[in-house]
Amino acid sequence: MSPELFIDIYDWIGVFVFAVSGGLMAVRQRMDIFGVVVISLLPAIGGGTLRDVLLGEPVFWLSDQVSLLIASSAGVAAFLAPRFWTKFKSLRWLDSAGLALFAVVGASKAASLGYGFVICTIMGTITATAGGLLRDVVCNETPMLLKADIYATAAFLGAAVYFVTRQYGYSEPISLTAGASLVFLLRAVTIIYKLNLPASKGDEGAI
Amino acid sequence: MSPELFIDIYDWIGVFVFAVSGGLMAVRQRMDIFGVVVISLLPAIGGGTLRDVLLGEPVFWLSDQVSLLIASSAGVAAFLAPRFWTKFKSLRWLDSAGLALFAVVGASKAASLGYGFVICTIMGTITATAGGLLRDVVCNETPMLLKADIYATAAFLGAAVYFVTRQYGYSEPISLTAGASLVFLLRAVTIIYKLNLPASKGDEGAI
Amino acid sequence: MSPELFIDIYDWIGVFVFAVSGGLMAVRQRMDIFGVVVISLLPAIGGGTLRDVLLGEPVFWLSDQVSLLIASSAGVAAFLAPRFWTKFKSLRWLDSAGLALFAVVGASKAASLGYGFVICTIMGTITATAGGLLRDVVCNETPMLLKADIYATAAFLGAAVYFVTRQYGYSEPISLTAGASLVFLLRAVTIIYKLNLPASKGDEGAI
Repeated sequence: MSPELFIDIYDWIGVFVFAVSGGLMAVRQRMDIFGVVVISLLPAIGGGTLRDVLLGEPVFWLSDQVSLLIASSAGVAAFLAPRFWTKFKSLRWLDSAGLALFAVVGASKAASLGYGFVICTIMGTITATAGGLLRDVVCNETPMLLKADIYATAAFLGAAVYFVTRQYGYSEPISLTAGASLVFLLRAVTIIYKLNLPASKGDEGAI
Repeated sequence: MSPELFIDIYDWIGVFVFAVSGGLMAVRQRMDIFGVVVISLLPAIGGGTLRDVLLGEPVFWLSDQVSLLIASSAGVAAFLAPRFWTKFKSLRWLDSAGLALFAVVGASKAASLGYGFVICTIMGTITATAGGLLRDVVCNETPMLLKADIYATAAFLGAAVYFVTRQYGYSEPISLTAGASLVFLLRAVTIIYKLNLPASKGDEGAI
Repeated sequence: MSPELFIDIYDWIGVFVFAVSGGLMAVRQRMDIFGVVVISLLPAIGGGTLRDVLLGEPVFWLSDQVSLLIASSAGVAAFLAPRFWTKFKSLRWLDSAGLALFAVVGASKAASLGYGFVICTIMGTITATAGGLLRDVVCNETPMLLKADIYATAAFLGAAVYFVTRQYGYSEPISLTAGASLVFLLRAVTIIYKLNLPASKGDEGAI
């Protein structure tokens, strides 16, 4: 399997799970089917779109309509059978899987354009978090990014692991898998044990 | 009248009614005149701006300052005489007119760049809905996009009708008018009869 | 000191104070250190990023990572010692300083690309206000832009003063300082005397 195909497969799975997460949130808000599909697209392609705009690259879905098709289908699936999806656990887990996959795919795209550590990890973090943030803001939900468990941190670390392993000469599939696994593991541990990074000790009442 | 001028006129009317809608929302929030003008610009040029950024085209108002002038004037008009505008019915109708005009203008711009059905209908929908969404999010109002009546669906169908009639060889003005009329008609029927697309039957308490 | 360095210094101070303002807001929301840094970046580089995207220019921080470093450091500083920063008065004053500096830096960037009064003042206003707006929307705070004191108006007037003095042949440092001083002065007077531009007299209950 070529590295390009490997990246695409990671990307498509990320698109699918994030689209289902957006669709379920829209169903919960009792939107109609078209609204559900629109909200599915936000997390599924929003992060990658912002990444491409910031990098000055053509937006990926103008030429690759597979992502659009996957995201729309996932939205329809969420609309038709929300209970089916929630059997596989809640939004939070789907979201974590999307976060893991998009963090490394985003870093990989920036790396393929020749950028270094800083820009690659930023692009990984943006690709992974911006779409979900958009979904939350549009749906008037408290952004997952703001809830005090390890979230953007996980995406950043996964992108960093991808970048560093790649620098050390590991293959694209291995680096992608290592980075994504770390993100998902961190999220899983965080969700299960309700871990948090320490919040500031500042007396926030005084600010 | 040349097709280009026809598109421009549709665009300018759309800019005007959307700007009034933004201005009225800002007046309702008791903003000062400059704030009202800023909020007027969001729905009036926000959707077209996002369309251009996504298409990798120069943002239209960098060279065409007629739109900026129309939008600012409409904002000032909304500030000075909010009661006058509300006589012509509420925000919801102005918003529907803007939605109708921008849906076909957006699809037309994408079509002129050679894109096919999928990208043209997406760009029509984005041009029509993104500016109003921006207005709602910034003003902390529940996005119209999320209220359960036919909204993004109408924009999408109008863009589709524009694209298909154009493919069948009808002239630009006829296709634009057919698409926009459908959107406005759908919105009018929806508003008057309070119609909705069916929402998901999912037990959303379980999600 | 060269004009370029002068612009950079204004820009960096703006980045710093806006980053602290974002960081303090994130601390108040009890976010972890990485979240605080992410939220610091929104006001610090959000406005300039939007300006560059709209102008079709490469996003500034892809090549200038000094801004990223300053913003991240300011975020860490806000996380570690929120009380220290609030001694220097609240978010509102830091925000006013950032507003002043970014208004003229944004106008200056557009002017260096050959744009006229309208686009330069718009870009100044966007650079100054969009990042803070993003910070407020993501943090679910009422946007400062919407509170009824002179805010976007001040940024616009400062950008206008920069543009006009520049046209009349004054040097870059003098024009930047004149514009930024006006913005800060307007904000200071507004905050101290609680001044407002008149809000619309419209009976908003009727809208």
